[in-house]
Formats: sequence, C-alpha cells, structure tokens
Amino acid sequence: MLSFELAEYKQRILKTKEKMVSQGIDVLLITDPANMNYLSGYDGWSFYVHQMLVLILDEEQPLWIGRAQDANGAKVTTWLYHENIISYTDDYVQSTTKHPMDFVANILTEIGQANRTIAVEKDAYYFTGMCGERLKAGLPNATFKDGTNLVNWVRLIKSDQEIEYMRRAAKIVERTMQTAIDSIDVGVRECDVAANIYHAQISGTEFFGGDYPAIVPLMPAGIKTSTPHLTWSDDRYKEGDTVILELAGCYKRYHSPLARTLVLGQPTQQVSDLSKVVIEGLNTALEAVKPGITLEEVELAWRKSIEKSGFKKESRIGYAMGLNYPPDWGEHTASIRPGDKTILQPNMTFHMIPGIWYDDFGVELSESFRVTENGCEILANFPRELFIKHSSINTAS
Amino acid sequence: MLSFELAEYKQRILKTKEKMVSQGIDVLLITDPANMNYLSGYDGWSFYVHQMLVLILDEEQPLWIGRAQDANGAKVTTWLYHENIISYTDDYVQSTTKHPMDFVANILTEIGQANRTIAVEKDAYYFTGMCGERLKAGLPNATFKDGTNLVNWVRLIKSDQEIEYMRRAAKIVERTMQTAIDSIDVGVRECDVAANIYHAQISGTEFFGGDYPAIVPLMPAGIKTSTPHLTWSDDRYKEGDTVILELAGCYKRYHSPLARTLVLGQPTQQVSDLSKVVIEGLNTALEAVKPGITLEEVELAWRKSIEKSGFKKESRIGYAMGLNYPPDWGEHTASIRPGDKTILQPNMTFHMIPGIWYDDFGVELSESFRVTENGCEILANFPRELFIKHSSINTAS
Repeated sequence: MLSFELAEYKQRILKTKEKMVSQGIDVLLITDPANMNYLSGYDGWSFYVHQMLVLILDEEQPLWIGRAQDANGAKVTTWLYHENIISYTDDYVQSTTKHPMDFVANILTEIGQANRTIAVEKDAYYFTGMCGERLKAGLPNATFKDGTNLVNWVRLIKSDQEIEYMRRAAKIVERTMQTAIDSIDVGVRECDVAANIYHAQISGTEFFGGDYPAIVPLMPAGIKTSTPHLTWSDDRYKEGDTVILELAGCYKRYHSPLARTLVLGQPTQQVSDLSKVVIEGLNTALEAVKPGITLEEVELAWRKSIEKSGFKKESRIGYAMGLNYPPDWGEHTASIRPGDKTILQPNMTFHMIPGIWYDDFGVELSESFRVTENGCEILANFPRELFIKHSSINTAS
Repeated sequence: MLSFELAEYKQRILKTKEKMVSQGIDVLLITDPANMNYLSGYDGWSFYVHQMLVLILDEEQPLWIGRAQDANGAKVTTWLYHENIISYTDDYVQSTTKHPMDFVANILTEIGQANRTIAVEKDAYYFTGMCGERLKAGLPNATFKDGTNLVNWVRLIKSDQEIEYMRRAAKIVERTMQTAIDSIDVGVRECDVAANIYHAQISGTEFFGGDYPAIVPLMPAGIKTSTPHLTWSDDRYKEGDTVILELAGCYKRYHSPLARTLVLGQPTQQVSDLSKVVIEGLNTALEAVKPGITLEEVELAWRKSIEKSGFKKESRIGYAMGLNYPPDWGEHTASIRPGDKTILQPNMTFHMIPGIWYDDFGVELSESFRVTENGCEILANFPRELFIKHSSINTAS
C-alpha cells in the first residue's frame, strides 16, 4: 500500500532529524496529517480525532499514536513496526474529563522523554489550544519549542516520484476543468456542475484513479465572484454570469490545482479588460521563474506587468503546494509575495493564482508549476484564456 | 442567501448569550466554522485561514473577523451589518512575523473589550495552540475561559427548519447508498464507485441539490474493513470482498449519515454472524430511544443485546450530529456511551453507528434519527440488512 519506496521515507526522516538537530529539538510531535503521511505513509480520514507521530531524535522509527479503531489503519498504510503503533481507548474521544494529549504525555513519560526538548506544531490545523495546554500540564519538566512547519519546509523540494504524482494529478485536473466548462450552461443548476466536477476528479483516468482534493470545488458565479471561497448552491446559471472555477486534481494526496474564469454570453468590458491583465501578468510571472531567484522577484514581475494597466492586487499571488489534506492544499511555507526571500530550486512546486476581486466581480486564472533546471514546467496543459460560452439555449431561440 | 429566518438566528444568539451569562463570559470568540455558520449564516471554504465571530454579551450583533478577500463572502452569506465585517490584510496569512490573532487582539482592545472575561473554543479544530498564545499575549488584562462546545450544546436541539434540512439530506443519502450498492461489482475500481457516490451526493434530487458532506465517502474493502476510516484506491473489487460504506447526504451543511455493509459473493460465517448481531443490537437500541431517558440507557440496550452473542464493542455507538464542516459531521457534545447522562429530548438528532471491527474484518450498519415526542424518527428509509451482491460477471461465467 505504500506510495513510495521505504528508502524515500527514511530519507525524509533523516532530513527532518537534521532540522531537529539544528533547532535543538529532541522530540517532534507531528499532528499535521500531511506531515504524518509524508513521514510514515499514514492515510485515513481520522484527523477529526487527536492523533500524531512522535519523532524521537535517537530512535529509528517514529511512533504513531491515535484512536484504537484507527490503529489497524496505521498497520495497513504505514511502514512502521506494529509495536510502534500505540492507541488510546475510546473514552478519550471528545470527553470532558480525559484528553488524548494526557495519554500522549503518559506515553512520553513512560519511554523516558519527559525531560527533553519537545517541539509541537503550534499553528497546525489539528493542534488545538487545548492540546498545547494538556501537554504542558502533563510534561512539566519538558522544554517546549515551536515546530510549526518544520516538516513542511522539508516537503518544499519534491522527489521525482512526488513530481510524477503531481503530473498525474494535473492530468486529472485537465479533464475536470474541461468537464466543468462543458457542463456549465444557462439554466443548469450549479450543484449538477459540481457533481460532474467531482465525478471527473475522483474517477481520474483509465490508467489511475483520483483521490479527494484538500479543498472542495470553488465555483462562485455572478455577484459571488467578488470573493474566492464560496462553493455552490442549487441556483441555475443565468445568461451573463461570470463563473470562477478553482479546482484540483489529486493523486495519492498530491495536488495540481488550476483556476479558470468563464463567462456565459458576452463578458462585460470590465471582465474582459481584467482577464487580459491577469493573463498577461500570469504569463510574465511564469516566464520569470527560474532557479536562483527569489519568490519576491517573481511577484515583482507580476506587479510590474499589471501596474501599467492601473490594476492592483494586495494579496499574495501563489504558494508552495503538493501533498495535503483538508482544509488546504497549500504547504504554508513559501509564498509568492513581497518579502519572501525563498530562493527557487529545481523541483519546488507552486500554485500561482493571481486572482483579482472587486466588490461585484472578479477574475482568476492560475497554473501549478514545477521549477526546472532553467525555468518552469507548467503541470496542466489547458488553454490560458477567458472562456466565453454562448448558451446553446440562447443560440437556438 | 440565508438558510433560516432572521428570527431564528437571533434566537440562537440569545440562547448562546444565556449560556455565556451562566458561565460568566463577556466575550465569546467563535472559530468553529459550524458555530460561525449557526450564528451568522457565514458559509465559505475559508476556514483554512484564521477567522472568527466575536460575540459580545452587550452588543446586538456579532463581529465577523477574517481575511480581506473573504469579507465579500461574509457580506453575501451573513445577516450582519457590513460595518460588523472586519478583515485583516493578506500579509497576516501564513506569516512567520504576524499572526491574525494579533489583529484580533488589537480590535478587541480598540473596542474596549481588553479587560473582560473572554472565552475561546480551546479544543475546536481551527483554534490552534498558537491562536491561544497570541491572544493571551495580546490581551494581558483579559481573563480567559474555555468556551469549547458552548455553542455546540446550543445546537443540540434542532428547530423544525433544521429537521427539514436533515430530512432532505436523508433523501440524498438514500439515493447515494443505492448508487454505491448498484456500482460495486467484481472488477470495478473503487475510485469509480467513489465518483458515482460523489455525483449522487452533490447533484441531490430534482427538487434540491446536495452540499459537500463534512467527511468524504468512507468505503474500506477487504482487509481494510478492519478499520473504519480508510477511503478508496484505484484497486478493483474482488469476489468475496466485504465493503463497508459510511456515507452522508448533506443539504445546506446539514447531514444525514448512513452506513451499510455489502459482501460481493458469499459472506463468511463470521461476517454473517456479526452482521446479525449488529442489526439486532441496532434495532434494540433504536427501539429504546424516547424522550426522558439518558444516552447511556440507550447504549445499555445495545450492550445487553450483543452480550448474549459473545461480541463486545469498546467504542461509543453514536453521537449528536447535524450542521457541520470538515473534518467531522459529529457535534462533539452528547455521545451514546456509558457515562453519558444527557437526557433525550424531542428534536435532538444522532447518528447511531455501532460498527464492530476485528483484525481482519468488520461490519457497520447505522441510522441517523431524530428524537420524537414518544420515540424516534429514522431519517433515511433504507433496508437495514447485510447486502449480498452476486457479481454479474461471475453469474455469466
């Protein structure tokens, strides 16, 4: 069931331990599901209860700690010795008197780690404020450090196998985007388009199936294009609607996101003008990508391109991404924005998504790309244009 | 766009404030996306960045605080005055130097709330350890309390409109489960069944569309049925596979989950025996449901039923559910388990899911139900049996 060779997991563990050494960390508690998967292979929808990997500097393998009914899932999906899979009983689940982190503190004490320097992923999604408090209370002699994004930074440069998975995800998103564009029409319900999108995302291709993306299809229409993160309703598309589609393909938890904008009928002058600016800016920024430059230099190429048209964008234009779980496919490390001095290196992967939103409309186009030896490889092959679709219903009337 | 009458939202605010008063809380910071939706109507896939509602005891309306590009989403989906929608700039997003909770602390200070008793949802998914630390640092004169599940408990008893939404979700899950059972066959890829499941979940019925459930289709097959929370692969189903299906319909964020177990071909004696025990236990426990008794009494009815067959189950057999966002449709309040003394009242809603898993197989059957004036209403109408499907391929050969 493992998605990678054992040697690749061991290499990841080694790189993580190198970072732990450099930051003076003896024990790293990993609760981010993507980081758990990255190091152990663990894959299951169980992150709604508290669980973690415990990576100890002087131990070969991490420990998996989770709920009893998920321990068999860890046995099936990870490369860990079964004796490294430790589970708590069900009375710890959503209890007001017992907390899974009490159990973790006891385990760490039993195995002689209670006096060490322990890092937690303080700002990771599933590491709650309560987790931090209970661990501190249960391990009063430990020194706590912040390990937020430590493993995420190890994930920044992908292996060839990871890139291959992202290329497969890109094949899936090409089909998915085409399905979306083919499905949208005047009078069609948004939910029926969303259903077709999901079908394409999950069935994948005849050669490989799709996995669930970390973000649901984002597909605001009409006035809702003024904001990027609305989903769908059972409203019907109307003549003149602008529709933003931000979708991803996912293969073995690796993503290739892609955004396009479509107009049903004739675009307004504003939408037409804005999409030209976004496309030219996107092209310019993608051309700027090469190893050795910083992310803020890439952003500057975009900024200069759009400035001459009088448009402005305050928010970042992209971020590192790859392996992930809901609620985000972004890696929370490098962002394409002013001040980010991360230097591009081959096999870093990003989603460049320079959306611009006004109070009553917006336009998004994006590409996922890999940094190559001398430029970038765009993962999906999909026309980079504003899609204008004349309704078959209107044409017939 | 609101899913409920304004009066219903105001009633919810009132009930929440009553709990705040009884717990000595002046200001409640609400980060659970379901609680944000419950009180304000806010609906968007933006919980991957920090956001919240601020409910102040002596103010009529809550404040929404989130990322700038999501503020228009709040204007579109909530009943709040636009001046109550406050946003932070994009440089707060996944930054190593600025945190959105610094912004929140500044806002609370500006509006005179810095010296009050402030409760946070300490163990809610998107309230990280870092959120807690930054708020405490930014509001040194505030007294902090734990508001985990405070709003969740208000959600426990549903309004008639909420029940209507859950009934619609049940209509969707009936179709979805039938689609799954129809799609599974020897030689079919798991991902293609998952794609059909998603299509049914999202397209809904001809009268209303579906929303995305808070949990993806859980559908372990074969050895993977030894654990409940694995998703799908692109493996093909084999003759003799047992398949567990735990699915939900979702309408306007309200859920009706349903689990069934299917065998491709002849079930083993173990699976056949275990499913009889689970079905009888489920029937017995559902018959026990009525207002005035406690949840642990319901669990006892199940326990007694299965004990006579020699089977055992350590984990809870169900939980309150309704409105939710990923990663869980459960409400994290009442559980059907020993020690839970919550007294059943009309319009409480639960998912009763007495799965039993062994090291190499498992069986799950479940029902979602509403407590009525004298018993319970099962939300979905679906045969409560072990599904045995003889492959069309094998029959032909």
